Amino acid sequence: MTDETTGPQSPLERVEEAVSSIGRFDAEASAAVARALDGKVKPLRSLGDLEHLAARLAGIQGTAEPHVDAPALVVCAADHGVAADGVSAYPQEVTALMLQSFAEGTSAVGVLARQAGARLVVADLGVAEAPRLQPGQNQVLDRRVRAGTADSAAGPAMSLAEAQQAVAHGVALVDDLVDEGVDLVGLGEMGIGNTTTASALTAVLLDRDPARLVGPGTGVTGEAFARKLRKVDAILARHRDADDPWDVLARVGGLEIAALAGVVLGCAARRVPVVLDGFITTAAALVAWRLAPACTDVMVAGHLSPEPGHQVQLQALGLRPVLDLRMRLGEGSGAALAIPVLRSAVTVLHEMGSFADLGLDDERPTA
Amino acid sequence: MTDETTGPQSPLERVEEAVSSIGRFDAEASAAVARALDGKVKPLRSLGDLEHLAARLAGIQGTAEPHVDAPALVVCAADHGVAADGVSAYPQEVTALMLQSFAEGTSAVGVLARQAGARLVVADLGVAEAPRLQPGQNQVLDRRVRAGTADSAAGPAMSLAEAQQAVAHGVALVDDLVDEGVDLVGLGEMGIGNTTTASALTAVLLDRDPARLVGPGTGVTGEAFARKLRKVDAILARHRDADDPWDVLARVGGLEIAALAGVVLGCAARRVPVVLDGFITTAAALVAWRLAPACTDVMVAGHLSPEPGHQVQLQALGLRPVLDLRMRLGEGSGAALAIPVLRSAVTVLHEMGSFADLGLDDERPTA
Repeated sequence: MTDETTGPQSPLERVEEAVSSIGRFDAEASAAVARALDGKVKPLRSLGDLEHLAARLAGIQGTAEPHVDAPALVVCAADHGVAADGVSAYPQEVTALMLQSFAEGTSAVGVLARQAGARLVVADLGVAEAPRLQPGQNQVLDRRVRAGTADSAAGPAMSLAEAQQAVAHGVALVDDLVDEGVDLVGLGEMGIGNTTTASALTAVLLDRDPARLVGPGTGVTGEAFARKLRKVDAILARHRDADDPWDVLARVGGLEIAALAGVVLGCAARRVPVVLDGFITTAAALVAWRLAPACTDVMVAGHLSPEPGHQVQLQALGLRPVLDLRMRLGEGSGAALAIPVLRSAVTVLHEMGSFADLGLDDERPTA
Repeated sequence: MTDETTGPQSPLERVEEAVSSIGRFDAEASAAVARALDGKVKPLRSLGDLEHLAARLAGIQGTAEPHVDAPALVVCAADHGVAADGVSAYPQEVTALMLQSFAEGTSAVGVLARQAGARLVVADLGVAEAPRLQPGQNQVLDRRVRAGTADSAAGPAMSLAEAQQAVAHGVALVDDLVDEGVDLVGLGEMGIGNTTTASALTAVLLDRDPARLVGPGTGVTGEAFARKLRKVDAILARHRDADDPWDVLARVGGLEIAALAGVVLGCAARRVPVVLDGFITTAAALVAWRLAPACTDVMVAGHLSPEPGHQVQLQALGLRPVLDLRMRLGEGSGAALAIPVLRSAVTVLHEMGSFADLGLDDERPTA
């Protein structure tokens, strides 16, 4: 229950307000789109997933005229205490360096977002060393909660209040973007060590064997991979008993995953489709789903990552990925690449002619 | 051997000239692109198929700077004698009506080609009744060889000379487009009954059981599907003994498939990537492959169709599809939707920064 009698909201109140305003999927708008597509000059349902996607966007946006006019990629970055143990192929400093690459527009997600006509929004939720950016570069939003999480194998990654603050930042980010006209949000992330955190988070939230979830991440093999697996086991030994999703999130981390869970909740509250990227953003979607099950209605799986846990996550959420291009970069690259497909789905709905236009009311196949 | 001492080329000479000028895949350019991508700010090979596609386009185009600046969709249309037996969910008149829809820009491939920034080129190779188009509409190129094929279950679909003429039209179409600056070609087709023809063609060319190839096409089920299967069996009973690819093509058909085979050969001769669509265009690719095996080097599979024979065809050609969206419309819709992915692959190569740019020559993972 939020206290509506006093001044500014607490982070938890902000999140709870978003959760309480999540509406229902508009099945009528969705069905209207499916019917309109059935009348187009093509065999019934022959555009396959494009038709499903157009109908899904309609149901999410609550209109029979779904749109992908102003998409944004929201990339959240933070550091992870677990990275100290060499679970990644890269040192922790790379998180901050990648923020510089985002600011310069030369990262993979920067290139792919431009190609997709999507705005790139980068937020620092707690990179260990705050990036120093040059004037004139793209802005990195300062939403720093703390300078990286603590090692979750040795204790909680962060406090409950910090987790709430990070999720609330995600909710607020979406509110600002939607107020500015954004009508679709893709998720991205950056944080050295975050496939380790995401593996542990997924294992706890879905009660799965981590050995079936942990993959090479940025490319660890051999002894480094064995180290990563041991690290996930150590995190689980300490936190597997956690059940409440807030508790799981605070104890396992990370800050960028918490914020992305907030972005999902914010999208659900504002009826904005949210396009998941790979394994880490889908871990954030699992957190959001445990906080508010109805938020799965606004999710679209942008792509399938070869990281073995991703398929497990998508099955739990009941999602079929748009793309399967064996991409395992993260950053939002898979979400960005899916946006042109989603835009094509709604454009087909708006621009294709119907059999009626050709004077053929009865040209539908009957066989 | 072509006779170079006399005047204008015969259609067969035109085709043979294209075949004789097919060059080798440029493995050096391809490897140079793979190396450049290895230096980008990302884990090694983490962009998966996007990296393979950029390297493949480089090898096809013969340059370490591959480009998708001026793509075109080439849609060939014709009618099929086999359609008289009710093998399709639609009557034969729909072929001509769909050409009208192409001319109006309201077809699926029209919408998707616009979205992809691709020029749409439609050619009539032999629609039963030539389309009557209004002035101001997009042009349909008149490359009519005959007014539809004969019923291949009762005799040859066309003469050898007609098949050669249709293939030569495809080669010439590509020559004109490449001379105008087109740097990538997607394939599309329209022809009521052409999944029946494509099934028979695939069964003969790959020596496969037609029961494993024939699918619903535009959407036939039940008795209509059984009729389609019987029709394919009847075509095979008459033409299964054909071995020479020219002979197979002339006897089984169809005119638009022949022209598309010519488009593939023309692309191979001009070092232009050719993006296959679904089951029918891939049958054309099989014809081209049998006429000139080296032409598979320039092929990219745009998508996977649920038509059961498509997977069989792609395996025979050694191709992995870019998209799998359960689309079974044809027209070039899957090829058109793959073009933005291909463009993204080359843009990543050209616009992403490298670790060296960040002052990190040695930041590659070693684990």
